[in-house]
Amino acid sequence: MRRKSRKQSMATIEPAFLTRRIPPYELLSEEALSSLEQQAEWLLTEIGIEIHDDPVALQLFREAGASVKGQRLRFDPGHIRALCETAPKTFTMHARNSKKNLEFGGDNLIFGAAYGSPFVTDLEGGRRYGTIEDFQNFVKLTHMSPWLHHQSGTICEPTDVAVNKRHLDMVYAHLRYGDQAFMGSVTAAERAEDSIAMAKIVFGEEFMRDHLVVQGNINVNSPLVYDNTMTSALRTYAQAGQGNVISSFIMSGAMSPVTQPALIAQCHAEVMIGIALTQLVCPGAPVVYGSFLTTMDLKSGAPTFGTPESTLATLAIGQLARRVGIPFRCGGHLTSSKLVDAQAMLESGNAMNCGVMSGANFIFQAAGWLESGLTIGYEKFVIDAEQCGALARVIQGLEFDQEQFARDAYLENGIGNSFLGSEHTMRHYRAANFDAELCDPNSFEQWRDEGGKDMQQRAHYKYKKMLAEYEMPPMDQATDEALLEFITRRKSSMDDMWY
Amino acid sequence: MRRKSRKQSMATIEPAFLTRRIPPYELLSEEALSSLEQQAEWLLTEIGIEIHDDPVALQLFREAGASVKGQRLRFDPGHIRALCETAPKTFTMHARNSKKNLEFGGDNLIFGAAYGSPFVTDLEGGRRYGTIEDFQNFVKLTHMSPWLHHQSGTICEPTDVAVNKRHLDMVYAHLRYGDQAFMGSVTAAERAEDSIAMAKIVFGEEFMRDHLVVQGNINVNSPLVYDNTMTSALRTYAQAGQGNVISSFIMSGAMSPVTQPALIAQCHAEVMIGIALTQLVCPGAPVVYGSFLTTMDLKSGAPTFGTPESTLATLAIGQLARRVGIPFRCGGHLTSSKLVDAQAMLESGNAMNCGVMSGANFIFQAAGWLESGLTIGYEKFVIDAEQCGALARVIQGLEFDQEQFARDAYLENGIGNSFLGSEHTMRHYRAANFDAELCDPNSFEQWRDEGGKDMQQRAHYKYKKMLAEYEMPPMDQATDEALLEFITRRKSSMDDMWY
Repeated sequence: MRRKSRKQSMATIEPAFLTRRIPPYELLSEEALSSLEQQAEWLLTEIGIEIHDDPVALQLFREAGASVKGQRLRFDPGHIRALCETAPKTFTMHARNSKKNLEFGGDNLIFGAAYGSPFVTDLEGGRRYGTIEDFQNFVKLTHMSPWLHHQSGTICEPTDVAVNKRHLDMVYAHLRYGDQAFMGSVTAAERAEDSIAMAKIVFGEEFMRDHLVVQGNINVNSPLVYDNTMTSALRTYAQAGQGNVISSFIMSGAMSPVTQPALIAQCHAEVMIGIALTQLVCPGAPVVYGSFLTTMDLKSGAPTFGTPESTLATLAIGQLARRVGIPFRCGGHLTSSKLVDAQAMLESGNAMNCGVMSGANFIFQAAGWLESGLTIGYEKFVIDAEQCGALARVIQGLEFDQEQFARDAYLENGIGNSFLGSEHTMRHYRAANFDAELCDPNSFEQWRDEGGKDMQQRAHYKYKKMLAEYEMPPMDQATDEALLEFITRRKSSMDDMWY
Repeated sequence: MRRKSRKQSMATIEPAFLTRRIPPYELLSEEALSSLEQQAEWLLTEIGIEIHDDPVALQLFREAGASVKGQRLRFDPGHIRALCETAPKTFTMHARNSKKNLEFGGDNLIFGAAYGSPFVTDLEGGRRYGTIEDFQNFVKLTHMSPWLHHQSGTICEPTDVAVNKRHLDMVYAHLRYGDQAFMGSVTAAERAEDSIAMAKIVFGEEFMRDHLVVQGNINVNSPLVYDNTMTSALRTYAQAGQGNVISSFIMSGAMSPVTQPALIAQCHAEVMIGIALTQLVCPGAPVVYGSFLTTMDLKSGAPTFGTPESTLATLAIGQLARRVGIPFRCGGHLTSSKLVDAQAMLESGNAMNCGVMSGANFIFQAAGWLESGLTIGYEKFVIDAEQCGALARVIQGLEFDQEQFARDAYLENGIGNSFLGSEHTMRHYRAANFDAELCDPNSFEQWRDEGGKDMQQRAHYKYKKMLAEYEMPPMDQATDEALLEFITRRKSSMDDMWY
């Protein structure tokens, strides 16, 4: 009767990325999807898109057959979709630790840290501007979180480093304190070049000619505009054969009409333009179809997250992205809450769950977000990361072999008796359930006697413990010195800019 | 260009129940579902089920062709499923206010209040035993919540009333302080009879002969046991042509094997027995296929909620229930947290979202749950109720008429401009987004200046305000007097029992 369970639990292994074994949720019919695609084509044909202050990009589109008037581009129906066709359906992204290489696309799912907050917060120090030490801390926490696969990029803004130099310290932190995949700078073309140059020091110029190791996170300036900062960074990464993640970050009612179908179709049109541009620069360049669709409080103009309308939009855009057939990015643990309260995890859970169910391949912003992205929280980070683990278990689905049906347990146990002591339970109890250590399931009395802590307080203890136990992944000394030498040289070539 | 939007927002109407316009999530393949059904049949054939201390129920099954040895029942493959076939696929439940009548089954979804907590809590008074005043308060809050459609039953235990008399005060509170559908007592057959008798005073004996107005909430004593308390209450409601909700409340690892496929199949077998019993008592009696499947912390034995394993089990059991074809109940806003913190709403959101996506027709336990059901929280109640509103918006799905595509707004707006002031936004801004008033999307500074409250604190204010503004729904004086007379008479016939 005794057999070894053939599978280890998700809780005891640490995959470099996840593979989905459950289907995505199909919200919309073929007819509805087709009407969204038609609306996107209408936008590209009748309204068009503008690329501001980037004659190179305009020229590329002109040569590809677009109608260009001033900075406005218009496309015949189907043209942009056709230009996206050289983008790879799946691709590998190489990490410094090759065991942590990532496969984008298909049934794969990659979780990454938050991106872009000027502020950081924790229970002890409260909300304050982020520093390079905070940045390093979040790279360390990402490195230590078994359920985060990608270090993201600007995890927080290191505001104690000059604006024109901080990308160097950020990329160094990504390369030195962690060994997973990461994103480089996109705030200027030369900063993207610096990011690529630093990656070459670690990965080798030769290797990077045909291997992806660094991505740019490119946002559309919705509605229907790309600005030169983004398109030049995009072109820099694509030219180097490196990656881009193209996303529309749209709050409906401001950067799009307030109705979700308009929002969804606009996102589709906008993102395809960015994808097409990567392919015009370098056919076959690895690129991700990104979306970041949400709502706003129309009374105050404040962004809102995890809302029902954003859930529907995210599920729909996932279907459209799958039809284009390239890796899809969306959502994350998003909230407008200022602290890690009920609102924070209600909104975050909604936003993240629909992202996973939408069939996403890449969800950064998966750990740390607070305050509509203005703040990254230490406690929020470890709570979100743990929830990524729970979702990893969900997408593993169920298996239906005889061992899972436990007939031996029923035959052993009879009727009316607890299964806690049965052989079958013994065989499975370690691997059976995901262990969410920050959730306290204990009795009221035990919980009270242990201090009556809320989840945020438990998370505070956990993140402190993790940082105390952090071990730096190895890097050979020559590489490290070369990185530092590069940074010193680049920094000494510039005056500090603080805005 | 100006057209009236043809639809009102979900936020401005108050439907008696919801109708799902998005598909349920189909987790499992036909093959997997079939293997679960085979396992359920194996359990019923090889292991069997026991009904304890209810010779009437045993006799009904014997007459229907079951093998009965002692209290153990066994069934030929397919037999129980066939006995379920007379159960109606859809039925109407009548409320005191006929505008609040409910349609169970099909694409309909009904949310109801929590059920069964001995304790109540709020920020002011902390955790304490529930009283009849608390009970009345929660009926009032349910009555006032536009997103709760069913008053549930034992919302909290009124522990200040004798155990053998409190059902009278509870049913009175349901009938007097609210006007929606409700559940009666199931703690003894005569208490079920009292519940029905009180309902007859309000609805009329004649009317109740062929109209459903009160349900019993029947739980299996898993694994594989029904006890007499439950089966006799079940028979009482069914005999009167009234309703039952049959649920297995199983924590895998204790009341079932620890592996989810075993849990799911066991639930299916157990619930079908209860459904079959209702049909043997009264063919065509309205009944709900219920499930309440969750996990436990296998180290401590504490129940856990909103876990990935329970998500998978809930999605699977929804598919099995749909194959039986009768209304399906599951889940709710469930948590083991002791306060309304991040854990509470993370777990609750997970449990509730998967319930809705599973295709459920009835989700009570949708508002108020804390501490694994031992406590109902006032603040939790109003937060959960608001989230029911958000989910109501999700299941409404998207529409794809031209107005939703907002082409006029693009033509008016051009490129790069905010849509906030566009005509299209003006036409839609009231109805566009669900208004979650307990979620604070404001800036950090505004939030801080308004007191830096967390969601629980905002909810405290809201529930107090609701109770202060409560208005009792009308009831004619003769009916009220008859109810009170019935209660006085019944109470005077019994000595107080306190355990």
